[in-house]
Amino acid sequence: MKLIDKRIRNSKLKEKIMSTEEASNLIKDGMVVATSGFTPAGYPKAIPLALAKRVKKNKEKLQISLLTGASVGEELDGALTEAGIIARRYPYQTNKLLRNNINSGGIAYADIHLSHFAQQVRYGFFGEIDLAIIEAIAIDEEGNIIPSTSVGVSPTFVDSAKSIIIEINNSQPLELEGIHDIYQPKDPPNRYPIPLIKPGDRIGTPYIPTDPKKIRAIVITDSNDQASPLAPIDKNSEKIASYLVDFLKNKVEHNGLPQNLLPLQSGVGSVANAVLAGLLDSPFESLDFYSEVIQDSVLDLIDRGKIRIASGTSLTFSKEGQQRFINNLEEYKRKIILRPQEISNNPEIIRRLGSIAMNTAIEVDIYGNVNSTNIMGSKMMNGIGGSGDFTRNAYLSIFVTPSIAKNGDISCVVPMVSHVDHTEHDVQVIVTEQGLADLRGLSPRERAETIINNCTHPEYKSKLKNYYQRALGKGGHIPHLIKEALSWHKKFLETGSMK
Amino acid sequence: MKLIDKRIRNSKLKEKIMSTEEASNLIKDGMVVATSGFTPAGYPKAIPLALAKRVKKNKEKLQISLLTGASVGEELDGALTEAGIIARRYPYQTNKLLRNNINSGGIAYADIHLSHFAQQVRYGFFGEIDLAIIEAIAIDEEGNIIPSTSVGVSPTFVDSAKSIIIEINNSQPLELEGIHDIYQPKDPPNRYPIPLIKPGDRIGTPYIPTDPKKIRAIVITDSNDQASPLAPIDKNSEKIASYLVDFLKNKVEHNGLPQNLLPLQSGVGSVANAVLAGLLDSPFESLDFYSEVIQDSVLDLIDRGKIRIASGTSLTFSKEGQQRFINNLEEYKRKIILRPQEISNNPEIIRRLGSIAMNTAIEVDIYGNVNSTNIMGSKMMNGIGGSGDFTRNAYLSIFVTPSIAKNGDISCVVPMVSHVDHTEHDVQVIVTEQGLADLRGLSPRERAETIINNCTHPEYKSKLKNYYQRALGKGGHIPHLIKEALSWHKKFLETGSMK
Repeated sequence: MKLIDKRIRNSKLKEKIMSTEEASNLIKDGMVVATSGFTPAGYPKAIPLALAKRVKKNKEKLQISLLTGASVGEELDGALTEAGIIARRYPYQTNKLLRNNINSGGIAYADIHLSHFAQQVRYGFFGEIDLAIIEAIAIDEEGNIIPSTSVGVSPTFVDSAKSIIIEINNSQPLELEGIHDIYQPKDPPNRYPIPLIKPGDRIGTPYIPTDPKKIRAIVITDSNDQASPLAPIDKNSEKIASYLVDFLKNKVEHNGLPQNLLPLQSGVGSVANAVLAGLLDSPFESLDFYSEVIQDSVLDLIDRGKIRIASGTSLTFSKEGQQRFINNLEEYKRKIILRPQEISNNPEIIRRLGSIAMNTAIEVDIYGNVNSTNIMGSKMMNGIGGSGDFTRNAYLSIFVTPSIAKNGDISCVVPMVSHVDHTEHDVQVIVTEQGLADLRGLSPRERAETIINNCTHPEYKSKLKNYYQRALGKGGHIPHLIKEALSWHKKFLETGSMK
Repeated sequence: MKLIDKRIRNSKLKEKIMSTEEASNLIKDGMVVATSGFTPAGYPKAIPLALAKRVKKNKEKLQISLLTGASVGEELDGALTEAGIIARRYPYQTNKLLRNNINSGGIAYADIHLSHFAQQVRYGFFGEIDLAIIEAIAIDEEGNIIPSTSVGVSPTFVDSAKSIIIEINNSQPLELEGIHDIYQPKDPPNRYPIPLIKPGDRIGTPYIPTDPKKIRAIVITDSNDQASPLAPIDKNSEKIASYLVDFLKNKVEHNGLPQNLLPLQSGVGSVANAVLAGLLDSPFESLDFYSEVIQDSVLDLIDRGKIRIASGTSLTFSKEGQQRFINNLEEYKRKIILRPQEISNNPEIIRRLGSIAMNTAIEVDIYGNVNSTNIMGSKMMNGIGGSGDFTRNAYLSIFVTPSIAKNGDISCVVPMVSHVDHTEHDVQVIVTEQGLADLRGLSPRERAETIINNCTHPEYKSKLKNYYQRALGKGGHIPHLIKEALSWHKKFLETGSMK
């Protein structure tokens, strides 16, 4: 069989093949365009690059709303931002140039809980989707799309869009087929329980059900997902991981937490990766991983026989991880499932499974509120992503952060966070390289003492104690000096340091 | 049949009957005591009064942790606080004296999402429950408890407690039997989907499954639930209700919201009650009400034939409402179901049903964050209650508040809220008597313009515009002047007015 027949198994659809330039002409000014992609994995690459090139060259006026699963690669967010094509952007991003444009007000961005986004699209909160652009490894006999390294919101985009363009990416291995499990709930008032009971359950189809009549164009490409470089694990991350593992060991010994814990969720990034690495030498076995993103550390845990199933919505590997995954794909496929983010992050499932949710904070305050998005209350970093989906419904919700940033000019524990993404009602455990604060069942005053004593950097500890002591004098359930509550941020903005 | 045989149908258990004074002796210093009750409905009354009396009289040193469903009546929270008996209190309260003690730091209080509380008790986050005190209308042949006017967390307390005391309340009508539907999910990793698909589904038992061996005492009492007085509906609440009804009408006409809407949730209190009253003359029919608390307005809507089913966890009526309900109990029982708060507020169910959640705010900010608990960032009002359970999982999450408070000395729309209970990611619609702000899909800057233009009081509008314009000059995704963000609260604390 010719490669093309393996990749496009419906012969009529082969007539839809066209050049990327032609396909990119289908994108018009004012459109709502929705693409596959979740982290730099499984996003369309060729068409956005062709579009950006043409728009720049011809100085066209062309602006779109761009909806994706989450962040995507440079070829999409970077190239389109640079060409001035993005007017509105949902629900998450991590791109430097895009971020700058968001912060200057040039691009309208709303960051949205990732589990909510698909249904909000279907509810019509963002208007009609004109065009869906989906990266695929293949199209099956009936015209259904078999996605590549992520699922994200693609099933909903494919369903809701007026037209679909498919990028068949030959560099994505055909052997990915069978790793996906696509399930889309109906919407209220016709929604039923999601029949997923265990992290490894398969409840859907291995393809995205697709109406082939809506497929307007197919483009053949051959270009790798951007890799996600991982910083080497530093001393502080190791300390955080070790406090966390000790805490979990203790809960197994004394509080009835099962020997193999409960399904783990871990945020994206280097600290989160280090925390998972900390499980490599832990006593825990037969772990389940029910999360968003599958990073290199999950491959390590699978190789070490620690994880029995890993469920997520995207494969987000380093260059080395990508190669390692491909070299042993058939083996990894038995332990990895990719689902729509509406299912990987679903509150119904998270609460049913009783996740142990581990996410990173930008800053925390002495009462347990967490800022994970806006630096100094204003400057968007990435977005809330799935952290709220898991935190809000987990058995245990944990936040990790180094106690200081910017060489000590920023204390990551402050009197009052400058932006709240996770409230005092939702944050149960905070871990820094200084120690762990278990906040469950504590009143705000008890939380403040625990956090200040266990989690703050020595450089800032007496300052925080001083703030808290003086705030106590004012009384209240959550004692604050409203005049000074944000003074640490003010000082940083004025002097470059909170010291 | 004698009344006592109808109320205690297991003859062996009659041996457990004792005086309230004797029963109150079972409560010892240092105990974790958990009681029935949700709002001033279905809480034990006689034993706490007897305990408080004795402790005060004898100047005993006796302090307990008190866990309930939510707020309870004066006879429990008020009397025990006055006698100095409460050391720790979870998960919600509305009592004036208790609140004062919380704010002075005398009582350790943590307010907790009401849907999470039962499972956190089972997870052991609050230690072992020594004693459960449950108000009941009867005990059945097997020794199971039939609760009274609320369910709250009672099923979990009955399961988890080492011993149980039952207050059989003869003033609670026996005809309540059959109104309850008691379902308790298993805990992870053995939890299954909750089989509730429609608001009217019955999925459990009409009694609380009880191990009769744990019943240590039964007390016979005869005293009404404290009534919840409702303020007459004022002009501002009427305006809020009318903006809201118009908005919903529009969504039915143009956005595919079903003609009978989606299941409604409404917070407690006078504004919430007024909003429901606004539905009386609306065109909507066959409404479902899936909420926490069933107030007088629900009876009005049932009488008018507007509501086909009302599901909640407590009956919270005014004195007049109590009488009205009892006079027509058999009729109302066909349309009302009382469930554990773990089910009435469950995120799995709320998201499945796609609720329209309507809750009240203390203050909102120009970016859509909501404070519903702590006045001026510090002083606890009541607690978050179930507002987060519904807001976080609803089809539509709506907050209502008058635009000003304290005769205009407080603007309820501020540059930055002084405490966050519901984040910008979760709040979709804000309504004041000035107008409605539909925030769905808007960037923070767009939200600020919409909220300032539509929702603020004329007295504060230009001040807010001025703040926002100057903040824009600083840039950022969420423009703020960090130095001034809380200056309105500071001014109020110093001068008694934000003007």
